Amino acid sequence: MRNCRRFLSDKMSARFSMFIFLLPVFVQAQMQPGLYVSKEVQPDNSVIFRVKAPDAKSVKVFGTWPASLPYAIPMEKKDSLFEAKVGPLPSGMYEYRFLIDSMFTLDPKNSEVTRDGPIIENRLMVPGPLADLLDVKSVPHGRVTSVWYPSSVLGEDRRMYIYTPPGYDQDKKKYPVLYLLHGASGDEDGWLNRGRVNYVLDNLIASGKATPMIVVITNGNPNTPAAPLDRSFTFQNAGQGIGPMASGKFEESLVGDVIPFVEKNYRVIADADHRAIAGYSMGGYQTQNITNANPDKFKYIGVMSMGLFSSFQGGKNYDKDVHVKQLEALKKNNLKVYWIGIGKEDFLFQTAVKLRELYDSIGFKYTYFESQGRHDWNSWRLYLTEFVPMLFR
Amino acid sequence: MRNCRRFLSDKMSARFSMFIFLLPVFVQAQMQPGLYVSKEVQPDNSVIFRVKAPDAKSVKVFGTWPASLPYAIPMEKKDSLFEAKVGPLPSGMYEYRFLIDSMFTLDPKNSEVTRDGPIIENRLMVPGPLADLLDVKSVPHGRVTSVWYPSSVLGEDRRMYIYTPPGYDQDKKKYPVLYLLHGASGDEDGWLNRGRVNYVLDNLIASGKATPMIVVITNGNPNTPAAPLDRSFTFQNAGQGIGPMASGKFEESLVGDVIPFVEKNYRVIADADHRAIAGYSMGGYQTQNITNANPDKFKYIGVMSMGLFSSFQGGKNYDKDVHVKQLEALKKNNLKVYWIGIGKEDFLFQTAVKLRELYDSIGFKYTYFESQGRHDWNSWRLYLTEFVPMLFR
Repeated sequence: MRNCRRFLSDKMSARFSMFIFLLPVFVQAQMQPGLYVSKEVQPDNSVIFRVKAPDAKSVKVFGTWPASLPYAIPMEKKDSLFEAKVGPLPSGMYEYRFLIDSMFTLDPKNSEVTRDGPIIENRLMVPGPLADLLDVKSVPHGRVTSVWYPSSVLGEDRRMYIYTPPGYDQDKKKYPVLYLLHGASGDEDGWLNRGRVNYVLDNLIASGKATPMIVVITNGNPNTPAAPLDRSFTFQNAGQGIGPMASGKFEESLVGDVIPFVEKNYRVIADADHRAIAGYSMGGYQTQNITNANPDKFKYIGVMSMGLFSSFQGGKNYDKDVHVKQLEALKKNNLKVYWIGIGKEDFLFQTAVKLRELYDSIGFKYTYFESQGRHDWNSWRLYLTEFVPMLFR
Repeated sequence: MRNCRRFLSDKMSARFSMFIFLLPVFVQAQMQPGLYVSKEVQPDNSVIFRVKAPDAKSVKVFGTWPASLPYAIPMEKKDSLFEAKVGPLPSGMYEYRFLIDSMFTLDPKNSEVTRDGPIIENRLMVPGPLADLLDVKSVPHGRVTSVWYPSSVLGEDRRMYIYTPPGYDQDKKKYPVLYLLHGASGDEDGWLNRGRVNYVLDNLIASGKATPMIVVITNGNPNTPAAPLDRSFTFQNAGQGIGPMASGKFEESLVGDVIPFVEKNYRVIADADHRAIAGYSMGGYQTQNITNANPDKFKYIGVMSMGLFSSFQGGKNYDKDVHVKQLEALKKNNLKVYWIGIGKEDFLFQTAVKLRELYDSIGFKYTYFESQGRHDWNSWRLYLTEFVPMLFR
C-alpha cells in the first residue's frame, strides 16, 4: 500500500479497489515485464539467475562465487531475459548483483539485500550444512542490541552491537564474551548482515556445538562513530579505507572503552579465560595489535584473512624485535586457542605464510585453518563457524 | 580491502601495495568513471542529483518528493553525466533511486540505503528542523534490540524491535510503551530504517518534548515471522500485501502475545494510561481494529494515512452498528488522545473524511492533523514527530 506512489498519477480518480494494496508486485512486473524466477536453485545446487533488461547490450551476474569461478559471469539473452547458470555451488550464503552494461543493479525480484561498507548486494542461500548454520531456524534466538557507548579515547559516543545468547534476559548467569572486528571499508553492520553471527551463534548453541556467549561487534573505524545508515549527513561518507583503521586508535579504544563498558553493563565473566577476540582482514591486523599489546587480556584469539601485515605493506615501521618480544609475552599467558584462518586464493595468503614462519621460528603455537576461499564473506562466514565452537571449552 | 575481488584477476601477481585497501573507491570510479557529487544540497535546499550512465537513453530520479512534484523527475544529459535539480525541498529525509531506461539502480555513490518491504532506495537528508529530529545528534541514545518472542496465537516465534530510552539500562524506573505498526508490504524494519523512530525519540526526549518511553515495533504480517533479511530461504518472499494483514490475526496476536511479553520482560507501567498505539496505512487499520475491540487497553491512539477502511474497499463485511457500539465503548474509556493524521494528496484522504464524519456524527472526539503529503514515509515521519510529543503527558 505504501508503494502506491509508484504508479499513481497525480490526478488519479477517487475510485480504488482492493487490488491497489498488491501494487508493489504489479509495479515490479511493470518495470520488468513478464513473470520469471530470478534465482532458481537446482537440485544439484547450481543456480539459474535471470534478469529482465530489455535495453541492455551486456549483462553479467556478479557474486561471491567459489574461487574456481570468476566473480563476473556473463549472462545470455534468451527471449527477453538474460540468464546464466552458476555452479553447482557449495552450501552457504552468496552475495550477488547484476552488472547491466556499465551499471550495477540489484535483483528487482529479491528483497534480501545486505550492505557491507559501500557495497550493496542481494543475498542467496544455497541449502546444505553451512546454510543450516547461517539461516533462521526453529531454535531459541538470542537478542541483538544496538548500543551507543562513550569513548574517552576517541572523544565521542560510538555505536556497537551486542548479541546476548538465548536465556540471558531470563537467567542470572555470567557469560564469556567474544569481540568481533571487521575489515577495511566495512563497519559494525557487516558481521550481522553478512556474517549472520547472531544466527550462527543461535544454531551452534542450540546443537551444543558452542558455549553460550555474548558477542560484541564494534565499528573499527576510529573516525566513524557508527555505520553509514546511522551517520549524520554532516559526517564523511563510507569507504574510510585503511588509513584510520591502521592508526592504532581503535585498538586503544577497544581496550580502554569497549571492554570496560561491556563488563560494567552486561553480566560478563571478566577475565582472560572468558574473553575472545577475532577479526578478518584489517580486523585481523587490529586483533594482532590488541593482543600483542595486551598479552594478558584474551585466551582465545582468531586472525582471519590476515597474516604479517608488514610483509604486505612494506613494513616501514615494523620492528621484528618488538614483535617477537610481544609474542613471547603472549606465550607466557598460556593461550587456549590462537587460530589463523586463510584461503588459498586470498590475496593476503602470503602474509599468512610469513606470519606462520615467524611463529614457527619462535615456537609460538597456533591452529591453522586453510580454505579454498578468497578474501570475501564466504571465507569469513566459514571461519566464524570453525572458530566459535573452539571457544570457552 | 574486502572488496578486492571487485577487480582482482584470478592470476594476479603476488605484488601488492598499500593502495589496494582503498580499492572500493577505485572500483566505483572504474564502473562510473569520473569524479562527481551525486547529491548536492544547495544553500536553498534544492538538490542536484547526478549519475553517470554512459549507455542510457533516458534517466530519471525517482523519489519521495513533496506532492507538488512528480515522483519521477527526468534528468538531462550534461557531458557524460545525467543531472537534475529537484526542489527546493522542505527539511527532512527523502528516499530516491535512479530509473535508467527501464531498470532501477541505486546511487553508486551513496551507501546510505534503506529498505521498506521489497523497495530498496537511497536516503538523503535535507537540513533544517525536521532533519534535526531525524538525524543522529550528540544527545543520549536509547538502545534498539531485536527480540524474538513466542506467539501462541500464530504458533511460531516472531521478531520485533524494542527501543528503550536513554537511561533504561541504568535506572530502575518503569516506563510507558508506544506500540508502532507498519503498512501493507512493509515489515518491522520500516519504522527504524525509514521512520528513524529511535533517533526521533532520542532527539525529542533530549529536548524535553517527549516523555521517555519504550517503543515496540512489530511485524504486522501474520504469515511472516520476521523481516525478509532474517527470513529463512524456505519462506515466501516479500510483498505479502493486504490479504493476511487484513485477516485480523495480527491484531489478536498483538493483544494476546506481544503486550503480555513486553509487560513481563520489560520495566513497563502496565495500564491503559501508559499504553499508546499507532500505525500508518494498513497499520492504521490494525490500530483501529485493536482499539475498537479492546476499548480499555490504550489511552493514546494514532491513526495515520488511514480512515474508514470500509469506505475504500467496498465494505462487504462492514457493520456500522457494531462499529458505532465499539466507538461508544471506547468513548467511555476517557481517551487522552485519539489522533488522525492524513495528507491532502494521500490516496486514502477520502477514507479519513468518512471516518471523521462518522466520529463527528456520534460525538467521538479526536485531534485532526492534515498535511500536504502523500501516502509515503515523508508523511509518516512527520506524523511521528507530531504524535509522540502528545503522549503520556
